Amino acid sequence: MKYTKHVFVCTNDKDAPKKCCGSENGMKLVEAFKAGLTERGLNIEIRAQRAGCLDTCGKGPSVVVYPEGVFYGFVTLDDVNEIIESHLVGDKPVERLVIA
Amino acid sequence: MKYTKHVFVCTNDKDAPKKCCGSENGMKLVEAFKAGLTERGLNIEIRAQRAGCLDTCGKGPSVVVYPEGVFYGFVTLDDVNEIIESHLVGDKPVERLVIA
Repeated sequence: MKYTKHVFVCTNDKDAPKKCCGSENGMKLVEAFKAGLTERGLNIEIRAQRAGCLDTCGKGPSVVVYPEGVFYGFVTLDDVNEIIESHLVGDKPVERLVIA
Repeated sequence: MKYTKHVFVCTNDKDAPKKCCGSENGMKLVEAFKAGLTERGLNIEIRAQRAGCLDTCGKGPSVVVYPEGVFYGFVTLDDVNEIIESHLVGDKPVERLVIA
C-alpha cells in the first residue's frame, strides 16, 4: 500500500441551493490536513487530498479515510487535529464525527 | 464500509508543461467507470469518482482502488471494462496496470 492512510476530502461545489462541501470549507480542510501532516513529518506515509462528491452531501463537509473506509461528516477545521492524532496516528476513529 | 470498492480517478490538470491526468482523459475515465458500473447495476455498492492529484503524475492517468489501495497507471478508456470485471467484480487486480 502506497500510503498507510489516505484521506479524501470532498471539495465539490454544486451550483445548487443546498449546502455543499466545497462551499463549506472543503479546500480549507484539505489545506489543514496537509499542514497538520507536514508539521508532524507524516506527509510521506499519509496523504490528504481533495476529491469530488463523496455522495454524503447532506452531511458535508465530508471526509473518508482509507483503507478503513471510515466516513466523517460535518467536519470543521477544529476537528482536523483530532482526526490526525486519534485516527491517522492512533488508529482510533473519532466516533462523534463518524457517519453511517 | 459504505462501498465494497471505492475508485478514485485523478482528474487533476496542472498548468505545467508535463502531462497531467486531467489533460489525459481523467474525466472521461470517471465517466466510463460510472457508466460501466451503472450498466452492471453495481453503482450503489461500488463508487467511482474524481479526485485531485494522487501523486503518481509521471504514470498518469492514474487510479486508486480502495480498500485494497491498488494504484493503476497509464490507464486508458480501453482498460476500464477490464478493471471493472477483473478487479471490482472479480477481486483480481489487473497486474499489467499496477504501479508500485
